[in-house]
Amino acid sequence: MTGFGIETLPYGAFRVGNETPRIGVAIGDSVLDLAPALGDDVFAHPTLNPFLARGPAAWTRTRDRLLELLTHEALLVSAEPHLIPRQDVTLSLPIEVADYVDFYSNEHHAINVGRMFRPDADPLPVNWKHLPAGYHGRAGTVVVSGTPITRPLGQYRGPDGTVFGAEPRLDIEVELGFVVGTPTAPGTRVSATDLAEHVFGVVLLNDWSARAIQAWEYTPLGPFLGKSFATSISPWVVPLEALAHAQVPGPAQDPAPLPYLTPAGTGLDVRFEVHWNDTVVTRPPFTAMYWTPGQQLAHLTVGGAALRTGDLFASGTVSGPQPDQRGSFLELSWNGTEPITLADGTTRTFLADGDTVTIRATAPGPNGSTITLGEVTGTIQPPP
Amino acid sequence: MTGFGIETLPYGAFRVGNETPRIGVAIGDSVLDLAPALGDDVFAHPTLNPFLARGPAAWTRTRDRLLELLTHEALLVSAEPHLIPRQDVTLSLPIEVADYVDFYSNEHHAINVGRMFRPDADPLPVNWKHLPAGYHGRAGTVVVSGTPITRPLGQYRGPDGTVFGAEPRLDIEVELGFVVGTPTAPGTRVSATDLAEHVFGVVLLNDWSARAIQAWEYTPLGPFLGKSFATSISPWVVPLEALAHAQVPGPAQDPAPLPYLTPAGTGLDVRFEVHWNDTVVTRPPFTAMYWTPGQQLAHLTVGGAALRTGDLFASGTVSGPQPDQRGSFLELSWNGTEPITLADGTTRTFLADGDTVTIRATAPGPNGSTITLGEVTGTIQPPP
Repeated sequence: MTGFGIETLPYGAFRVGNETPRIGVAIGDSVLDLAPALGDDVFAHPTLNPFLARGPAAWTRTRDRLLELLTHEALLVSAEPHLIPRQDVTLSLPIEVADYVDFYSNEHHAINVGRMFRPDADPLPVNWKHLPAGYHGRAGTVVVSGTPITRPLGQYRGPDGTVFGAEPRLDIEVELGFVVGTPTAPGTRVSATDLAEHVFGVVLLNDWSARAIQAWEYTPLGPFLGKSFATSISPWVVPLEALAHAQVPGPAQDPAPLPYLTPAGTGLDVRFEVHWNDTVVTRPPFTAMYWTPGQQLAHLTVGGAALRTGDLFASGTVSGPQPDQRGSFLELSWNGTEPITLADGTTRTFLADGDTVTIRATAPGPNGSTITLGEVTGTIQPPP
Repeated sequence: MTGFGIETLPYGAFRVGNETPRIGVAIGDSVLDLAPALGDDVFAHPTLNPFLARGPAAWTRTRDRLLELLTHEALLVSAEPHLIPRQDVTLSLPIEVADYVDFYSNEHHAINVGRMFRPDADPLPVNWKHLPAGYHGRAGTVVVSGTPITRPLGQYRGPDGTVFGAEPRLDIEVELGFVVGTPTAPGTRVSATDLAEHVFGVVLLNDWSARAIQAWEYTPLGPFLGKSFATSISPWVVPLEALAHAQVPGPAQDPAPLPYLTPAGTGLDVRFEVHWNDTVVTRPPFTAMYWTPGQQLAHLTVGGAALRTGDLFASGTVSGPQPDQRGSFLELSWNGTEPITLADGTTRTFLADGDTVTIRATAPGPNGSTITLGEVTGTIQPPP
């Protein structure tokens, strides 16, 4: 599958040459330049934020209009002058990120990490099944797919004490990111079933992770520099409306969550595959998540924190129950003890300079079809 | 001491009536409306960010011009039409916060908290003297002084299990906040001694903390909802240049920090006092900090994270070695076991609804004088 079909219509920020970025929708091998095609200057901005701020009724109206425009031959004539070949455009960050929150809502991942990082303790933290744990990440280092990823320098614990150097255990985390459109006033609680009132759509997200830095720094304040050098997102934001056929019941949850986290809302049947250079090394299923995105949003707002247009929250690493469904190389290589063999015969535990990781995903579409959610990719550069 | 003298000249965002906020400088009982006074539209914006982005040479030029304007009688005539009585203006958030980072750089505080939260372990985390630990907070809930603080609802661990309700142990943290003006490109490392190239000035900061929520949620990802409902800052940003006489040598550090954290740069002799309703309950000294703000900035950027104009980083709770210098009520009341008696005869451990906390601070000025850094205040409201 290449390109996005009519059932997806994802939004992104593009430019031609040195122009200022503006908003387009991907269709097949083209990008529809929305400001002239729809006669609406909200799409002449360099990010989606002004459009997102309009809220769900406007999102639906625009999507309906695009579906009409692109499927009626008579109307298509008026759109054609505004279709630009994908190969002629450069894509940029589709949203101006306000606050970025990263959750930790996959039980397989949490247990795997717990076993490796805290071998003497219960692998699952005692609070884990009571709340969707999360933390704030660095909004300013969220980058668009294709941005080179520089291996971070930092402090970590070596066998002979504290050292400074290039991160030796550079990793990925496969995640789904949720883009908030509709803001809230401070003190507003959003229920888990109101996800679609506030979340416009999803991106594929690679939460690049410096494991040695992270392991040394994270107690007691959580991840900081181990996560804040770069977080990559796919350039095309897929509207939640395009994922209507991917909705699945949330998982069984035991113990029962507190009332503010119920009803849980739905999960999503999104299927990832991770390409390490030219080899597919894992296929994490989003159906394996424990907490739903609606529960994440309900938890995030229950204490009164306002939402802003452009807020981004990520699911946490997606890992399935099987070894070939693990969503990080930490887990895939079991903390570096079980090397992974790539198609070219070389082996890996963590990322080497020059390696490229591409995460792709699909989901069920209408009438038994499969739709693509695009990809997020990045190549590792050595530190300067 | 009331009002700011000519040696301080702090910047803030003000409005008269329903006007859009614009930038002014506080002098005595007045606010100088900078856009018309200096003939520069950069001050017609609702936040300081466009001015901050100009960088340190521009900050110095503007300060020099203001000093000239306000001290030469001939020039003062031209400024006078643009002086507005403080009582006629409403102050708003002076900066648009990009990323907000909260450090944890005070040894007394870290040891006190460690003793209370982790009684069975070494009170100081093993990494604490090797790096200035920090985490990202929620930029979208940074509010200006005077904004009412609503007691958050949330999940915490009671004696009989997990409960949901209003935070029973609402607290403050006395901190100094550093406002970043000059951005950096990704991959740029800022040395500790280059603080003034990037940091424009300081604000007083109250990191309101929901202790019961925090204690239950913070392992292993650090503080999240316990800190993200509100963070208050003073409305007047005091330029680092006004604190030239407050610079003091950094503390002795043992073990010696890694080279990327040296030389440490200077500390600041800022003296806080905390008013709980009408009672001064503690006087934390900023000279008691272990890591300098320069070291915090060097650590924050060492992994390649870019700085943006409007980034805000906070020192961490300021506590002195003496009991009456502790910078949080958690420490002052020793986890609620030692009530504090206020001037009206009532006692407190944590905050009651209706309580007002005002943090004020001073620092050495020129010629043996003392300058004020203003105040940050907030009053607790019950949850809706």
